[in-house]
Amino acid sequence: MVFSGSGGQGIITAAVILAEAAVLHEDLIAVQSQAYGPEARGGASRSDVIIADSEIRFPKVTQPNVLVCLTQEAYNKFYSIIRPGGLLLTDTRYVRTWDKVDARQREVPMFQTVMDRIGNPVVLNILMLGVLIRLTEIVRPESIMKVLETRIPPDFLEMNRKALYLGTELGSSFIS
Amino acid sequence: MVFSGSGGQGIITAAVILAEAAVLHEDLIAVQSQAYGPEARGGASRSDVIIADSEIRFPKVTQPNVLVCLTQEAYNKFYSIIRPGGLLLTDTRYVRTWDKVDARQREVPMFQTVMDRIGNPVVLNILMLGVLIRLTEIVRPESIMKVLETRIPPDFLEMNRKALYLGTELGSSFIS
Repeated sequence: MVFSGSGGQGIITAAVILAEAAVLHEDLIAVQSQAYGPEARGGASRSDVIIADSEIRFPKVTQPNVLVCLTQEAYNKFYSIIRPGGLLLTDTRYVRTWDKVDARQREVPMFQTVMDRIGNPVVLNILMLGVLIRLTEIVRPESIMKVLETRIPPDFLEMNRKALYLGTELGSSFIS
Repeated sequence: MVFSGSGGQGIITAAVILAEAAVLHEDLIAVQSQAYGPEARGGASRSDVIIADSEIRFPKVTQPNVLVCLTQEAYNKFYSIIRPGGLLLTDTRYVRTWDKVDARQREVPMFQTVMDRIGNPVVLNILMLGVLIRLTEIVRPESIMKVLETRIPPDFLEMNRKALYLGTELGSSFIS
């Protein structure tokens, strides 16, 4: 999987949380990475996660099965790398998709939902994880929650829980 | 480089900050990753950073030039992977080194210093980065600060700055 967006959207954090959930609570194996090159100096950033049920030999994602784009710039830069037949998840508000790719395309109002229902964009990444795990069933929401419980200060845990389950609910309406 | 320790010590964050500083402010290229396997279920965790001045083809660290161990468990698990002639940086309080490796060994009172001078263990990872960049000269402290300025809430920035420069100062006394 590749999560892409801009700095400050929490895509590295989301990737780390997903990887930890898979390993600690689902008996899977994971590698999570960021590759930075000259292009990192401004523009879209990406964060990769590989989840498998056996050893991962080459830890680099070239053609993701799942591509998440939270900004237009990220979409423009990465949409073409998706694996044929994969899942392309974009934010309705920030991304206008402009080319047909051979993928299940899901344009989901993630930013809109987080603002309307929680009012704080800081948990957009957690809501996105909710949508993603509902669409892919890669890990259970409870596994994400267990990781959040160890990472998030108690005062913010409820907001994160709400974002996660808003995400799974939102994801349900985009399953076809 | 491999940073190792236990969950909650901020080793992933330290690795991400170092990678971003190298790429955004030093004209280098970096890959930062976490590999999680069955062993992640309890015990020592690790976070890898590769920094180079040209393309990084294989993003996995097998023999690090620099190994940082912040807990005994991390040291026991990883000390043997260090590249001959590399730098082994351990925390005096938490790690008792018990085998001779072919490396520059530096046992530095990082935890002690952060507690005595700042009183908050949350910035141990930043102090460690200060020591590390002083011993390796891989990036300048100003480059780390620029990244911290974009990531740390204003109220906590001064504590992070203090930790970083305490680290560089402490590192200076361990150069031989």
